Amino acid sequence: MQNSIWIDLKSGEQRKEPVSEAEFLTGGRALSSDIIAKHVPAGADPLGPFNVITFCCGILAGTTISNANRLSVGSKSPLTGAIKESNSGGTFAYHMGRLGIRSITLEGIPENPEKWQILHINKDGLFFEDGSDLVSHGCYKKAEILTERYGKSISFAMIGPAAEKRMRSAAIAVSDPENSPARFCGRGGLGAVLASRGIQAIVIDPTGTLPLKPQDKDLYQKTNQTIAKLINSTPQTSEVFRKYGTAAMVDVGQALGFLPNRNFSRGKFELSEQINGQALADLIESRGGEGKTTHGCMPGCLVKCSNVFPKEDGSPLVSPLEYETIGLMGSNLGIGDLDTIAKLNYLANDSGVDTIEAGAAIGVAMQAGLAEFGDSEAALSMMEEVRNATVFGRVIGSGADIAAKVLGVYQVPTAKGQAFPAYDPRALKGLAATYATSPMGADHTAGHTIRSNVEDHHSYVGQAEASRLSQVGVLQWDALGFCYFIGAAVPDLTMICDLIKAFHSRSFNPEQIRNMAIATLTTERNFNRDAGFTSVHDRLSEYFHHTANPDTDTVCDIPDNEISDLMQDDQLT
Amino acid sequence: MQNSIWIDLKSGEQRKEPVSEAEFLTGGRALSSDIIAKHVPAGADPLGPFNVITFCCGILAGTTISNANRLSVGSKSPLTGAIKESNSGGTFAYHMGRLGIRSITLEGIPENPEKWQILHINKDGLFFEDGSDLVSHGCYKKAEILTERYGKSISFAMIGPAAEKRMRSAAIAVSDPENSPARFCGRGGLGAVLASRGIQAIVIDPTGTLPLKPQDKDLYQKTNQTIAKLINSTPQTSEVFRKYGTAAMVDVGQALGFLPNRNFSRGKFELSEQINGQALADLIESRGGEGKTTHGCMPGCLVKCSNVFPKEDGSPLVSPLEYETIGLMGSNLGIGDLDTIAKLNYLANDSGVDTIEAGAAIGVAMQAGLAEFGDSEAALSMMEEVRNATVFGRVIGSGADIAAKVLGVYQVPTAKGQAFPAYDPRALKGLAATYATSPMGADHTAGHTIRSNVEDHHSYVGQAEASRLSQVGVLQWDALGFCYFIGAAVPDLTMICDLIKAFHSRSFNPEQIRNMAIATLTTERNFNRDAGFTSVHDRLSEYFHHTANPDTDTVCDIPDNEISDLMQDDQLT
Repeated sequence: MQNSIWIDLKSGEQRKEPVSEAEFLTGGRALSSDIIAKHVPAGADPLGPFNVITFCCGILAGTTISNANRLSVGSKSPLTGAIKESNSGGTFAYHMGRLGIRSITLEGIPENPEKWQILHINKDGLFFEDGSDLVSHGCYKKAEILTERYGKSISFAMIGPAAEKRMRSAAIAVSDPENSPARFCGRGGLGAVLASRGIQAIVIDPTGTLPLKPQDKDLYQKTNQTIAKLINSTPQTSEVFRKYGTAAMVDVGQALGFLPNRNFSRGKFELSEQINGQALADLIESRGGEGKTTHGCMPGCLVKCSNVFPKEDGSPLVSPLEYETIGLMGSNLGIGDLDTIAKLNYLANDSGVDTIEAGAAIGVAMQAGLAEFGDSEAALSMMEEVRNATVFGRVIGSGADIAAKVLGVYQVPTAKGQAFPAYDPRALKGLAATYATSPMGADHTAGHTIRSNVEDHHSYVGQAEASRLSQVGVLQWDALGFCYFIGAAVPDLTMICDLIKAFHSRSFNPEQIRNMAIATLTTERNFNRDAGFTSVHDRLSEYFHHTANPDTDTVCDIPDNEISDLMQDDQLT
Repeated sequence: MQNSIWIDLKSGEQRKEPVSEAEFLTGGRALSSDIIAKHVPAGADPLGPFNVITFCCGILAGTTISNANRLSVGSKSPLTGAIKESNSGGTFAYHMGRLGIRSITLEGIPENPEKWQILHINKDGLFFEDGSDLVSHGCYKKAEILTERYGKSISFAMIGPAAEKRMRSAAIAVSDPENSPARFCGRGGLGAVLASRGIQAIVIDPTGTLPLKPQDKDLYQKTNQTIAKLINSTPQTSEVFRKYGTAAMVDVGQALGFLPNRNFSRGKFELSEQINGQALADLIESRGGEGKTTHGCMPGCLVKCSNVFPKEDGSPLVSPLEYETIGLMGSNLGIGDLDTIAKLNYLANDSGVDTIEAGAAIGVAMQAGLAEFGDSEAALSMMEEVRNATVFGRVIGSGADIAAKVLGVYQVPTAKGQAFPAYDPRALKGLAATYATSPMGADHTAGHTIRSNVEDHHSYVGQAEASRLSQVGVLQWDALGFCYFIGAAVPDLTMICDLIKAFHSRSFNPEQIRNMAIATLTTERNFNRDAGFTSVHDRLSEYFHHTANPDTDTVCDIPDNEISDLMQDDQLT
């Protein structure tokens, strides 16, 4: 049995509804966007009483299938003003699946949102408990408190101190297998939404439950073994991701000229070799101790792109250190030192803010002359301000777009108010199309094109098409609640349908998954239209359209009509 | 001869074009909006190279007719993202008229906008001169420097230090007859636009020119005398405005419950009698010295609603102290002390920011808990931060909407990103309609309804209609370059047509003026539509739609369809 849980925070009413047959396939981003589109008036203030926040997993959550336990959090975003799904790894969705929960949706705002609460879920039900002792602590301390109170077997999704102050880059921290607040629904400020409802954390205790058992054990084993072989034999998953993690992208960015350098002023970085995948792996290995060059964030993951970055003494500092953080908090700030980047990452995690948004905002502050690019101490000091929620920290925590408005910076790397990930869209033009047109704003995970079939990443030719294919492609995985990294090894969804059949005795085909993805994009685009987004908003920040990346001598020049057509219904189907 | 002046700041090219017969009537807001709509791509970044800023006067500028010398500055607003016209009194437009200049339009951005310039205009031409010695000074000091350099007969339109930092509530300070930077194109952040073009000030020297002379002296004298009699015999202009200035509105607000109190939490203020028109007039009179309860901001003005607020020793502190400032920097902050309000006003003027926006932003900061309401020292300290352009000061200087985003405040008194003037729209519902639908964002001068023919200002009945009539009505004056306060005494435009005929030997009728106003609204609405504004943006901040003003027990409840219909073409014609 799979259930949707609905909680009205104002009335206290709870209800549990079984997932209908018609919607049995619908999970992850497909489900979260469906819930938001149906239950949130498009014009609602994201931090007001008419917004809703929902936590959704996929159809195979609760199993130990590799990549199957992604958590999708949906809401109207206080950062972009658009519909938002932000997903993360960790153990939360796995425990939802074990408890037979497909979605947890919070509606309304309690009479007194200052009375902080914890939502505690176990096999006996849902309970609101006092969360006031968590207030103001950093995420790492909060994780300790929760683990001490509820035991090591729990998982959690929680806010950090930045969200308590409603910072618009505030993330939701999700526990990894070691109950570290290491995984983040980072993008779009959804932590601020959860905070505005007076919720410190949702804690799930799976005690008394087991991983889902296949109904058809043979089909499961056969299919799962095939998938394992594919993951273990595909270079991208078995070598690149597993050995270097996402940090492998630094060298690609340096080669193609999309590695952000000094607030996206350039696309190559003179110190890239100090922060690339090899440097990261070497440093972790040389320090020994509890550092790990490979680490799984979800039960059963075979890709294991995560890592644990150790301090000099070998004790863990932060996990994982990823490409986006290296790009935004490293090269984008002119910082070529992994220890500094890891400390910035730690402070962002402890504050509970998106590292992409924070890195981009610090880049904007440096552009404004508040510090020199390359000044590690200044960058660390700015992140300390975020952690301490000073006014300056709150400016940084508001994200790059608002920071640029406050600090008077024209050169701001954003689309729909959300900061570019670590790919200069002038040098990887499929991402220019994705940043511009995704309902999510600038988001590489909404439609990456680095492995798309285009002739030249620097040319606009074919990029709109590549973006569309990728946006639909990745949404299939998002809707299934899968980490899309599996897609590098398992491009065909037939095997996923076999796994669904093995566990749930229901037959689906890849076409249905594809249709679900397309319908979700349409749902999201319609919500955004009703929220006031027009074709004007399907553009990047103006600067990138007329100022060349000097390392590639290219600007964002995809013709307007190609961008406008990209998401038209007749193009999608 | 009336001329349009066009300056390309990038190429340095200047051109002067005579105003065509077809556009001879078009001035003020009609002209500025026409120029912006034609020359700015709607999607342009307001601080980027594709925006334009234009300075326009009306058809009777350069005469000494009462109220005829208003300056309209137009641009795409960095505060609202919409088309913007912000107008002010002072002597600038009068001198434009004397020089035969109807508009001065600046296009492009110079190669090096850091090289600050002064645009110096006199009868011999236009000259760019070094403005670097003005940088960082407050507006009062800048005014002294300009007057010393160019002489007492000049007028100027200039930026303050806030604009140098691109604060989005940065105004353009305009000289009054004493060459004090007392009049402001305050709204919409147009100072930041001028600053982004590297312009410190536009200085006009009328030396060698005379006021415009009527062609038909008899018609002029007859008409002008009739107008003078009307102004001098109408209680609103001859008694209320002249005796108390706009501060007379404090008592009206207190009676009707629209006087903002503590970030628009209430509509009456317990200390209103300490800050009302009578208290202001009494204080000015009791101090003697250079204080003035009545003062004309433009040559020939008979209304003289301005004043000069003196320090305790009788020397001038600030001019004028107006209702909007008293409401936003006084009661809205829980401050019931005119000296404090005047000091806040002085600091806002010296910084060059809109007092409405700054007062609303400080209210938001107090709501966020950064200071107590009523704490005068804290409010003064925040304005000092604006003046010193600290990061906190830049948050305040970004206006109420961005300050609320940075500080996590839901209760924010704005529409289209612009702060409410000192009228709670829940208690003066015609202004709810104007705030929501005006292309300008929340702006009382875009369609006031306090004297509209409605049964009950607290009821929504008839308010959309009242707003529409007022929006068209006031735009007629804006398009003529007149201060609309004359409208209280001279409701019929026939006499204005007679004056135009007397000076320019051209016949126009009131219907043409009305059509110009309606066409301007349509032009502005179309620009905004192309800039990405939809019906969703024709709403106030959500809080005011569902939380009652406790002093009137009313919310903003004008039905959506009435708001949506308000500005439809068939309703306007």
